[in-house]
Amino acid sequence: MAEHTTATTRVSVLGAGNWGTTVAHLIGQNGIPVTLWGRNEESCAEINEQRRNSRYLKGLELSEHITATTELAKAVEEAELLFLVIPSQAFRSVCADLGDLVRPNQLAVHATKGLELGTGRRMTEIIRAETCLRQIGVLSGPNIAREMCAGKPAGTVVASRFPRVIEVSREVLKSHQLRVYGNTDVVGVELGGTLKNIIAIAAGMATQMELGENAKSLLITRGLSEIARLGVALGADPMTFSGLAGIGDLMVTCASPLSRNHRVGAALARGMSLKEAVDSLGMVAEGVKAAKIAEQLTGELGLRAPLMHAVYRVLYDGLTPAEGLRELMTGAVQEDIDPSLTRAAATKKR
Amino acid sequence: MAEHTTATTRVSVLGAGNWGTTVAHLIGQNGIPVTLWGRNEESCAEINEQRRNSRYLKGLELSEHITATTELAKAVEEAELLFLVIPSQAFRSVCADLGDLVRPNQLAVHATKGLELGTGRRMTEIIRAETCLRQIGVLSGPNIAREMCAGKPAGTVVASRFPRVIEVSREVLKSHQLRVYGNTDVVGVELGGTLKNIIAIAAGMATQMELGENAKSLLITRGLSEIARLGVALGADPMTFSGLAGIGDLMVTCASPLSRNHRVGAALARGMSLKEAVDSLGMVAEGVKAAKIAEQLTGELGLRAPLMHAVYRVLYDGLTPAEGLRELMTGAVQEDIDPSLTRAAATKKR
Repeated sequence: MAEHTTATTRVSVLGAGNWGTTVAHLIGQNGIPVTLWGRNEESCAEINEQRRNSRYLKGLELSEHITATTELAKAVEEAELLFLVIPSQAFRSVCADLGDLVRPNQLAVHATKGLELGTGRRMTEIIRAETCLRQIGVLSGPNIAREMCAGKPAGTVVASRFPRVIEVSREVLKSHQLRVYGNTDVVGVELGGTLKNIIAIAAGMATQMELGENAKSLLITRGLSEIARLGVALGADPMTFSGLAGIGDLMVTCASPLSRNHRVGAALARGMSLKEAVDSLGMVAEGVKAAKIAEQLTGELGLRAPLMHAVYRVLYDGLTPAEGLRELMTGAVQEDIDPSLTRAAATKKR
Repeated sequence: MAEHTTATTRVSVLGAGNWGTTVAHLIGQNGIPVTLWGRNEESCAEINEQRRNSRYLKGLELSEHITATTELAKAVEEAELLFLVIPSQAFRSVCADLGDLVRPNQLAVHATKGLELGTGRRMTEIIRAETCLRQIGVLSGPNIAREMCAGKPAGTVVASRFPRVIEVSREVLKSHQLRVYGNTDVVGVELGGTLKNIIAIAAGMATQMELGENAKSLLITRGLSEIARLGVALGADPMTFSGLAGIGDLMVTCASPLSRNHRVGAALARGMSLKEAVDSLGMVAEGVKAAKIAEQLTGELGLRAPLMHAVYRVLYDGLTPAEGLRELMTGAVQEDIDPSLTRAAATKKR
């Protein structure tokens, strides 16, 4: 990749929220000029003039290599590599705007954990549907922004079917603080980042109910198995869910009592309704939407997913967390490892 | 399994330590008479007369269905199902004693997490070498004894190539509190329970060094990948490490700052030598032995295991935890998922 050394790659990050700003900061810290696009004039001015994004990253002095802009065309024009860090439900409309601006030789990596409500589409599917971009990928992993900004070590995954997307992304992101792992399983990495939020709601309930570490591990492991089952049905490799973008991300999300999904689960276990829980949070947690999408997908595919189904019913169907737990503990016991996911099954199939 | 209803199965647990007593208590709580063998006369008398094992499980009132004995022959004679819960380094000598006492139609499940020092043998290999028992299996999973005794919910795994071993074990152990999952991959379940202790030492170091949740998740996930790589080389199914006896147990061990392995890692990160760390603990943590065995096995097999290797060098080779971390963060980055573990590899091989 001599033609893409860190010195020459031009990078833009689209989306100046918490995570988009962090991604731009990590790249800027490597000495690479990076353009950061956001809608908010004031935020962009603050980033350019004061090296701060006080709305999302209080107290952090941003890299001087970031240039913020509200002009999408300007951010896109010269970039060789675009990072799309846009909320899942706004993703299609930004991609539609990008459709007129991008060129097929540009590389694009999104870092959005979610599926489109209604269609259940993954973000790379939306990029392909709305733009001519084809050399695309996804960035995902156990990456709490606050810790990354504090300079603490972490690992992340870039998945793409194009080795060049992985290599160039790694070149601009990697540092003594951040390890960037490659994966070719785009579907698995996208689904891991989305479905974990449903399990995090269950973990929040378990924490509030003081069920202990054994039970939390049971929930997370069985949740992982359901994620893998659904993922494989949608075309993922089961092993991806054992990696950083699967169990790695799931673990961090379930361990963090500050995560939105965890807090929604805890609020429900305290007896709040979904509306009250969401109101008390002041925003919608991704898992609340993901549970709805997963309920639809598992239904259509005829898949067993008792844990995700229980979370769905607690959220939308009036089941109490205690009732959900009782059902889960007394339901028929399956195998530790879903027979459809073992090596024997993989070899038998072909 | 009509001939093996809970009413008729005669069960003995060999080993009256922390976990053996807990296993007997769980079975007794299901109303099943259970014989508990231990070497200590006083402990056995205390269990029979006061329903307590104050040396290991302070404050717990034990099930009235437990009968403790120091006579091994008596414990073995009438049992249809034996649970062996003996420390790994004493396992062979107890099995040698069992050699003269057991019959080939008896079922045996061990719950010992460890490998034999020197030989690297798994506990089921030792059972087969020393006795005529063949219908054997292993019990393992994320099961902190303290939580189980407090009645908190949990899941566990029984692995055996004999469905009857799984079914009878499940019959006696399962309850509204405990779910028992089956697995046919004995090798994978035994290795998962052993090798996780090495990663727990690394997690203890990371906690002491305040590296954050991202880093801990990176360590655990990469550790899981090393465990799977070594496990597969030794005959395990890679998916087992995504189950309760793999990542499930690993997660609980790494989350618990009270676990011995975690405490050894934290002590080393505070600058203690291994000897000081072990002395301050008052006992040897399993991971300290497992690291030595894994170092030998990965060497013989020519396998990459940078994390286990770093733990080994911190324990035995004078590397500081900070140096180990630096090496891990700057070493060559591999794929998120080891190519040898993916489905494509499994199908290609045959």
